[in-house]
Amino acid sequence: MIQNKAPGKDITTEDMKEKFPLAAKDNNNDFSTFEVNGITFGDKCIPVMAGPNMVESEQLIIETALSVKKSGAHFLRGGAFKPLSFPYRSVKYNETREDGIKWLGIAKKEANIGIITEVMEEKYIDLICDVADILQIGSRNMQNYPLITAAAKTQKPIMIKRHYGASLRDWLGAAEYALVENNKKVILCERGVSVPHTHRDSSRFLLDLQVIPAAKEITHLPIAVDPSHATFWRPWVEPMTLASIAAGADSIMLEVHPDPNNSAVDPLQPIDFKSFSDLMNKMESISEINGRHIKNV
Amino acid sequence: MIQNKAPGKDITTEDMKEKFPLAAKDNNNDFSTFEVNGITFGDKCIPVMAGPNMVESEQLIIETALSVKKSGAHFLRGGAFKPLSFPYRSVKYNETREDGIKWLGIAKKEANIGIITEVMEEKYIDLICDVADILQIGSRNMQNYPLITAAAKTQKPIMIKRHYGASLRDWLGAAEYALVENNKKVILCERGVSVPHTHRDSSRFLLDLQVIPAAKEITHLPIAVDPSHATFWRPWVEPMTLASIAAGADSIMLEVHPDPNNSAVDPLQPIDFKSFSDLMNKMESISEINGRHIKNV
Amino acid sequence: MIQNKAPGKDITTEDMKEKFPLAAKDNNNDFSTFEVNGITFGDKCIPVMAGPNMVESEQLIIETALSVKKSGAHFLRGGAFKPLSFPYRSVKYNETREDGIKWLGIAKKEANIGIITEVMEEKYIDLICDVADILQIGSRNMQNYPLITAAAKTQKPIMIKRHYGASLRDWLGAAEYALVENNKKVILCERGVSVPHTHRDSSRFLLDLQVIPAAKEITHLPIAVDPSHATFWRPWVEPMTLASIAAGADSIMLEVHPDPNNSAVDPLQPIDFKSFSDLMNKMESISEINGRHIKNV
Amino acid sequence: MIQNKAPGKDITTEDMKEKFPLAAKDNNNDFSTFEVNGITFGDKCIPVMAGPNMVESEQLIIETALSVKKSGAHFLRGGAFKPLSFPYRSVKYNETREDGIKWLGIAKKEANIGIITEVMEEKYIDLICDVADILQIGSRNMQNYPLITAAAKTQKPIMIKRHYGASLRDWLGAAEYALVENNKKVILCERGVSVPHTHRDSSRFLLDLQVIPAAKEITHLPIAVDPSHATFWRPWVEPMTLASIAAGADSIMLEVHPDPNNSAVDPLQPIDFKSFSDLMNKMESISEINGRHIKNV
Repeated sequence: MIQNKAPGKDITTEDMKEKFPLAAKDNNNDFSTFEVNGITFGDKCIPVMAGPNMVESEQLIIETALSVKKSGAHFLRGGAFKPLSFPYRSVKYNETREDGIKWLGIAKKEANIGIITEVMEEKYIDLICDVADILQIGSRNMQNYPLITAAAKTQKPIMIKRHYGASLRDWLGAAEYALVENNKKVILCERGVSVPHTHRDSSRFLLDLQVIPAAKEITHLPIAVDPSHATFWRPWVEPMTLASIAAGADSIMLEVHPDPNNSAVDPLQPIDFKSFSDLMNKMESISEINGRHIKNV
Repeated sequence: MIQNKAPGKDITTEDMKEKFPLAAKDNNNDFSTFEVNGITFGDKCIPVMAGPNMVESEQLIIETALSVKKSGAHFLRGGAFKPLSFPYRSVKYNETREDGIKWLGIAKKEANIGIITEVMEEKYIDLICDVADILQIGSRNMQNYPLITAAAKTQKPIMIKRHYGASLRDWLGAAEYALVENNKKVILCERGVSVPHTHRDSSRFLLDLQVIPAAKEITHLPIAVDPSHATFWRPWVEPMTLASIAAGADSIMLEVHPDPNNSAVDPLQPIDFKSFSDLMNKMESISEINGRHIKNV
Repeated sequence: MIQNKAPGKDITTEDMKEKFPLAAKDNNNDFSTFEVNGITFGDKCIPVMAGPNMVESEQLIIETALSVKKSGAHFLRGGAFKPLSFPYRSVKYNETREDGIKWLGIAKKEANIGIITEVMEEKYIDLICDVADILQIGSRNMQNYPLITAAAKTQKPIMIKRHYGASLRDWLGAAEYALVENNKKVILCERGVSVPHTHRDSSRFLLDLQVIPAAKEITHLPIAVDPSHATFWRPWVEPMTLASIAAGADSIMLEVHPDPNNSAVDPLQPIDFKSFSDLMNKMESISEINGRHIKNV
Repeated sequence: MIQNKAPGKDITTEDMKEKFPLAAKDNNNDFSTFEVNGITFGDKCIPVMAGPNMVESEQLIIETALSVKKSGAHFLRGGAFKPLSFPYRSVKYNETREDGIKWLGIAKKEANIGIITEVMEEKYIDLICDVADILQIGSRNMQNYPLITAAAKTQKPIMIKRHYGASLRDWLGAAEYALVENNKKVILCERGVSVPHTHRDSSRFLLDLQVIPAAKEITHLPIAVDPSHATFWRPWVEPMTLASIAAGADSIMLEVHPDPNNSAVDPLQPIDFKSFSDLMNKMESISEINGRHIKNV
């Protein structure tokens, strides 16, 4: 039998040299560290990105920015542009687009916090770069290589979410598209994969924590984890966040909303301010066991 | 227990009304038919799209066009623009881009055959529309909604390949983005999904034929199948093509190359001219059992 | 990186020699044929096994035996012993066990048709062998090797259903346990696998038709397909049955019930007598295209 | 559309009442605790089960028992009877069966440690019960209900490993078979599931940690995790063990071998004595954050 390797299957040493030489580690201890807005990724600190799924309003995003900053978050997350699986919007369920970006800019100043937000189209990248400290490539765009290239060319830090159907090899290929633009500030973010069994009608993905040690064998890039989108279910967010840190995550993204049940999108998954604050304390304790920390000391 | 339905899980009647009212059937016998280049999709005829993965050269694409046309193919397929999982190209493994589109145009005239080719970026859509009769949205761009919107606005027929990690619901959402632009000529194309077991080192996907009857319960759109990409293995192309037709496929896309082993991309999967010609005869016989036909009578 | 092969991943030539030398093909054209009750498996004929999920009553099984025999079925299927996912039975939903076996014996004589039925425990094998022509190892017992060994030692033909989470390699390992007992009459039966997306709330598995050509590259054993259990949905049974034959299936197992909606188990999946009879005619036509036949000529 | 729920899909309140009333929680805070050999499961302590995959020899099992006991393990694990995916054994790769059970008995006395070992066939249950404190139902036998019933009838504690293709609902169904025999000492053990992507040629499963909070919503039974079998790769065992505890695991099973590279089975996965001892200290620290402990205080 011929045994040619399929693209996307397990990674070979040849892949590391030929397919993603920039994403691949040079040696066992080769791990990137880089600074974004005064926060170092890939080192002892585990930066936390927190905020609502959607930048619903100016008031909501300012209120959230102030609260998560106070609890120790390093970045405010929030989507102004966002892929929606269907073309219909409602008053409540909608992208705020240019307005949302403007409101993120206001929240950034008010709370003195860095911003991570998603880019969807090349034509809005300049606008978004005015306020964003990290450009997020969403999971649905993980294989939209022209978009990754355009985002990387800005030299802003890029966070690439893993597509829920993508292999580690596919994901590293996406990262290579950013790195080849000489942008060295690339973060990978696991956010759940499609699997045969997901345990609830309201859950769709399984958080793949095994990919953390797996990725760290191959790549020097920091690995973030987003337990909110993966679990899609508030009560599971805390245990999976703690597990992510225990498994070696370099950064955590969490969905935090002042009034989770009335969140414009995915109301089953965000946690409220108090839960976030409590969780930050537990995250701090777990991270110390691996010689790391969340809050700045 | 709360049982809110997760996005992307099984389809409800409410989804059909609210999420994809245009893609959803109005009644059991509601199936779209439309004409492309004199060929009717969604009716008795099962149009066949055949050609190489990449438009490697002018000679190759003309030669292939003439051969597949002679064997009864209705459309020539071939990628000039194409997502590659890694940013490195070689002399052999490369997109031919503007040249490729030009060569497709020449082959189209020489062989008098319709063209289907992939669009990757909005900025090349006009160029591609000059020669293409059907615009293909590749599986990796199935959730690149701005691209689907831009392609649909041209009013050219659109074929949307299912992402290998996408549910039927996700896929119909993508179709709705095209339909909402008042473009009624939308084809869905199954091309294999990621599953726990795929039987060979050289295979990565499983062709999901169950999605054919499943989709036909929900949507009026024609369902095409691409067994070449799904199997990634030449010897399985014939049985899975015949099975696709037996399961009710409305169109077949096949990778055909004059010299498969020396194909620039994925040499394990294309079939040669003779095999294609033989397969067309078997496809004809199978299709007759369902009261359909391949070749024009 | 060390690249030791995990058990259950893709099959190597070494596996064929060391792990399942008896199940593996000796050469490309090595395919087993053997006779059961005057019916040859693995040759031109595609034997059909039809009947209810459960042997609910004497009357039901006799009526079904007569009807499916008349329509051309070669074997009557029906479970008297059967794994139920939960330990609770009801008057309707229950195993008929010793009674069921007795009724199968009566139906066998009345309709002059061979019997296939499931074995669950070693202690009932003798009882079952009195009436069964083929012993079925259910998917849930595919890795119950002591049971396979005990069943194979009877020298009755054995049909091993693939577990819905099992790789091709696992499945061939199970077959090897039967073959090593010098029992050469072993049939493999695909009945659906667990995958990330299954298209309906009422469906749980995806029929893996790609495993047919995949298995035939590796093993000489005949491959049966059970589209009823895989689809779990009556309207999909016909297209997936025809697709199975087009893909090269050597035998078909179908759930047939006189009154499907009132079937004691899984009422969404059986087809009625008339549908079965009509389907047999379509199966006959499809099989002829591959130079095979269903009904005895 | 009819939306009948497929067996094995997400769990409903009705399932909890009708399908597994004994495994289901009565209220949010309903969690079983029970004592095995002086160790309490389901409470503050997180019992650890450690030892080799196979009881290879008397010396090896005694040496391992003494070492893991000294490091704080509560139970010695080791297989004397064990399902092998293929029927061929070698001098090295073999079950030690009756001898293995005898050696476990000697190790038990020498190290004063409880024993957990697998049962494969009803006929050996009495023999195994002479030395075992917990009977393990292996993942491949998770749906071998007669075996579970026979094991449960002994009233020995039962640990049921999840099949790698089983849903949470399937798994709870298996537990119900034990509970219905009035055996209240039932432990569930997650050991990895089959998924589309597993990151290495040498890995086959993904550890499903999301099932821990998911199971704890539904069932009062303690949830153990076996990271060794799930990862199949030594370097990933530590991070996934720590993640398991952070996610709320009630017990941990680990493969520990005096000379991992020369382990008779699966040499890529066991850790050595020193690594186990170091890991126990990290596990202790992580468990304290959730108000739990590993070592007896």
